[in-house]
Amino acid sequence: MLTLDQLNQAASAAAFAALLDGTYEHSPWIAERAAAQRPFRTLAQLKLALVQVVREAGVDAQLKLIRAHPELAGKAMVSKTLTAESTNEQGKAGLTDCTPEEFAQLQQLNADYNARFGFPFILAVRGPRGLGLHRHEIIATFARRLAHPVDYEREECLRNIHRIAEIRLNDKFGHVPAEGNRVWDWAEALAAHSDPGFAEQGQLTVTYLTDAHRACARQLAGWMRDECGFDRVEIDAVGNVVGVYEGSDPAAPRLLTGSHYDTVRNGGKYDGRLGILVPMACVRALHQAGRRLPFGIEVIGFAEEEGQRYKATFLGSGAITGHFDPRWLDQQDADGVTMRDAMAAAGLRVADIGALKRDPARYRGFVEVHIEQGPVLSEIDLPLGIVTSINGGRRFVGEMIGMASHAGTTPMDRRRDAAAGVAELILYLEKRAASQPHLVGTVGLLDVPGGSINVVPGRCRFSLDIRATTDAVRDACVADVLAELQALCVRRGLQHRLEETMCAAAAPSDPRWQRRWEAAVQSLGLAVHRMPSGAGHDAMKLHEVMPQAMLFVRGLNAGISHNPLESSTNDDIELAVRAFQALLSDEMSDMP
Amino acid sequence: MLTLDQLNQAASAAAFAALLDGTYEHSPWIAERAAAQRPFRTLAQLKLALVQVVREAGVDAQLKLIRAHPELAGKAMVSKTLTAESTNEQGKAGLTDCTPEEFAQLQQLNADYNARFGFPFILAVRGPRGLGLHRHEIIATFARRLAHPVDYEREECLRNIHRIAEIRLNDKFGHVPAEGNRVWDWAEALAAHSDPGFAEQGQLTVTYLTDAHRACARQLAGWMRDECGFDRVEIDAVGNVVGVYEGSDPAAPRLLTGSHYDTVRNGGKYDGRLGILVPMACVRALHQAGRRLPFGIEVIGFAEEEGQRYKATFLGSGAITGHFDPRWLDQQDADGVTMRDAMAAAGLRVADIGALKRDPARYRGFVEVHIEQGPVLSEIDLPLGIVTSINGGRRFVGEMIGMASHAGTTPMDRRRDAAAGVAELILYLEKRAASQPHLVGTVGLLDVPGGSINVVPGRCRFSLDIRATTDAVRDACVADVLAELQALCVRRGLQHRLEETMCAAAAPSDPRWQRRWEAAVQSLGLAVHRMPSGAGHDAMKLHEVMPQAMLFVRGLNAGISHNPLESSTNDDIELAVRAFQALLSDEMSDMP
Repeated sequence: MLTLDQLNQAASAAAFAALLDGTYEHSPWIAERAAAQRPFRTLAQLKLALVQVVREAGVDAQLKLIRAHPELAGKAMVSKTLTAESTNEQGKAGLTDCTPEEFAQLQQLNADYNARFGFPFILAVRGPRGLGLHRHEIIATFARRLAHPVDYEREECLRNIHRIAEIRLNDKFGHVPAEGNRVWDWAEALAAHSDPGFAEQGQLTVTYLTDAHRACARQLAGWMRDECGFDRVEIDAVGNVVGVYEGSDPAAPRLLTGSHYDTVRNGGKYDGRLGILVPMACVRALHQAGRRLPFGIEVIGFAEEEGQRYKATFLGSGAITGHFDPRWLDQQDADGVTMRDAMAAAGLRVADIGALKRDPARYRGFVEVHIEQGPVLSEIDLPLGIVTSINGGRRFVGEMIGMASHAGTTPMDRRRDAAAGVAELILYLEKRAASQPHLVGTVGLLDVPGGSINVVPGRCRFSLDIRATTDAVRDACVADVLAELQALCVRRGLQHRLEETMCAAAAPSDPRWQRRWEAAVQSLGLAVHRMPSGAGHDAMKLHEVMPQAMLFVRGLNAGISHNPLESSTNDDIELAVRAFQALLSDEMSDMP
Repeated sequence: MLTLDQLNQAASAAAFAALLDGTYEHSPWIAERAAAQRPFRTLAQLKLALVQVVREAGVDAQLKLIRAHPELAGKAMVSKTLTAESTNEQGKAGLTDCTPEEFAQLQQLNADYNARFGFPFILAVRGPRGLGLHRHEIIATFARRLAHPVDYEREECLRNIHRIAEIRLNDKFGHVPAEGNRVWDWAEALAAHSDPGFAEQGQLTVTYLTDAHRACARQLAGWMRDECGFDRVEIDAVGNVVGVYEGSDPAAPRLLTGSHYDTVRNGGKYDGRLGILVPMACVRALHQAGRRLPFGIEVIGFAEEEGQRYKATFLGSGAITGHFDPRWLDQQDADGVTMRDAMAAAGLRVADIGALKRDPARYRGFVEVHIEQGPVLSEIDLPLGIVTSINGGRRFVGEMIGMASHAGTTPMDRRRDAAAGVAELILYLEKRAASQPHLVGTVGLLDVPGGSINVVPGRCRFSLDIRATTDAVRDACVADVLAELQALCVRRGLQHRLEETMCAAAAPSDPRWQRRWEAAVQSLGLAVHRMPSGAGHDAMKLHEVMPQAMLFVRGLNAGISHNPLESSTNDDIELAVRAFQALLSDEMSDMP
């Protein structure tokens, strides 16, 4: 078993690389270059140093590294010739069990992939939990990645190479990400509950107060009580699962944390849930060690955040902040069931909702762990990110109105082309949003209703979604975009209609809590990367009553979310648990 | 009754204006300025001179002219105070019969219109035939024009003022556009036939070989025979209505002319039909006068041009040029009826189609009169235009493929926004097409399939329609657009799919026949305006076998077509008939 001490003390870069032999396929130069960055305090730091060397080596060296790998489809054919490590990886991957049809499919995908990209398809077949992907997953991933742009796919191959290296390093160092595995397995088990109509297709959908939703609440409460050793666990009047692990000083304000356990339709297993399960793992570790913090920790699995069954988003955290709107009770779902009836059927007491409101003075603040739901951490190869602010957003739906006319007979200088007007707006928004960091602008809805190939568009519908870390930056962008819309309508002789459909205030992180997350991440040997949260989170709601700060965990597959491809590795989740533990230690050491 | 001689001999501009008093409301300056252009050979020339004065007077003077008119809604109230002329106009307009509800609606429209435009709503209430619009038409027009851009509506008011002036001048000069009235009334009568499902809603739809289509053919054939005095009239094997008026020399090559009598769904009354009815009126006049041309004239009402019921466009003219494709016979309509069965049911003999092919040596050429279907003649205030070429067109449907991602969490520099890519293409095409005369490019289809307000578009569908007077100009534009598409995909990391769905060659007018149309238009005292035809026409098909040239007639309502608002005045049609007669005289004088 290799240790960091051995590595740090290796006599030369070559000796250092020799100890890491086999981590990167036929590429000792990677370890050799990383040797200069010794000493390594943590395995995570070593992994990142190796990743960094590959990043800085440039595209030619990266392609050489990719091409140093055997073809995955080839592995399925010639398994007997593989090295011991590779055989081990392949055994877990299940490619040996291919049917002749699957084998033929793999060969075809491989041929198509080579023709398209000119380098071999690389996949970390041991997967995000290290237990091996099923061959169906491998084939589906192969097919999906065939559609990637070339440069994106080259980077995806590198990310898979780094994951292969990570698993090899874990083996070399005898490192088992036990907390990461536990949380990963909890997330998997929780995903066994899914709403009717989705469960049958293997899709994850858990909307407010369905049977699957209630089963999730019971499951979470059960784990909190039986596995984690929380002192008090309850399902409250709106369905939130609340676990309290008391501190040594019952009078000290508590730390509040948590996230939501409902999902969007056909969603992912980590969105929300990671923020409940990570602190649960921390409490479990404290309890196992027989330790108490000086302050209590309260973990809430919020019952509702996504606004899927009813239009009341942040219902769970809203009840905690005292913003539950009684008018929501009369909202009906798609089947005409009111929220009031759904609550009654679930045995929830509407009369008790008001009492859920917390007194902020009794809390130190709110922290939330969440999967990033974006590509940034994946692209910069960092497992954790520090949220600086949850972006404020404004949304509009609009319509540009010109004059429909014959595409053949209307000269260019006599047109009032509604689509060309919207095209100008799209490009203006794109440029304006790119002109400042942490500002994004999107036209997600776009269509020419009833358009014809030979008719100059008389109408074009569009949407605007503009978000920034501060309301001022966001509003300045909105003002510029609306001014440009007005100006281009005058220039082009167009009219427009525009309706604002959403306006949400930004929630900047509390500086003190943000610094604690930063210190926690640094203590793991990781670089601090500060970033805004583009998506909304429960912390946005808690922000209204107490200080808050969030930690982001890298998502696989370019950080895709609200999608079954949402994924995270046991190693990344392990780091999130350790960061949370470091945060608790830091906060503890801060106590008077 | 006023005469041109009196006008031409008026002692001064003021005396000239006094003779035209009341033509333009409280604005003698218009006639005064036009006086300098004496002598006037034709009434049409005088009308255009007056229009030209207003065009050159600038926006302030134009607004003053518009504001010199009383409000139409006011007229409905205070009819007793109007001048004799105005009362006459209003009497024909039927506004005196308003119900209290209609009156209230008019007052509201008037208030809205004034608030929006700041000038009174002007409508030539005696309408395109001079018989008066129904009050329902007036109210509908009022409501429709409320949505116009301001500058467009100002020009629409001026066009209505010129139409009012035209009718007043006709009255002053005792001028009755008898041929125009005849053709206008024929078009109206022909429009009484419409396909089931459209007829009930007052919509005009005549598709290939329906009962309405067959009734149109019989009606046309009946008029040719009974009213116009054609020597031979038949409905041929594809449903074309063919009328021959023999010349004095039966051996001399004939002049071929005509257009189509089928329509698009919910189409207009003039598209195609004008090109059958105008030469019919000419033959009628010849026959009434007992005159023969040295050559025969063959007028064809083509049975099919629009490709509505079956995908075979130019079926009627295609049969004449020998391009009827027998595979068309197996095409099915929406109800599964094959063309073969539809022909059999209509009593048409498929076996005779081949014999419809004409020997080009037996024809002098093909001329076609057609409503413009575009805004150009309307905008420059000219009733007739000379077609220089029927544009060649190429069409593509395509899809831009990027990466769908979260609108909040994906930074601007990490997006692969398919819609932004298409936006760039739209603006490039717009600029490229505007860089040369007689070249047009349109993106008529545009949509982000399954788009969401908060998702960066991963896909965006679009179309391209590029047309020019010559294939070389068109193809150069296509090449540039495809190169830009390629380049922007590289810049933006996008992919695309593109399929060419149509490629039609340009059909430049025969110079000799084009010059004859020009001479004909000049003989009426009108300026020659040369223009390409953006839309395809039967002449495009005939072009493949014989010289051809087209005459365009101004359309009202900005030249809108394929729409019930397609319209033309009796005065403009009168000029088209006269131009055709002049063309025939010119061709006759050319004979050896």
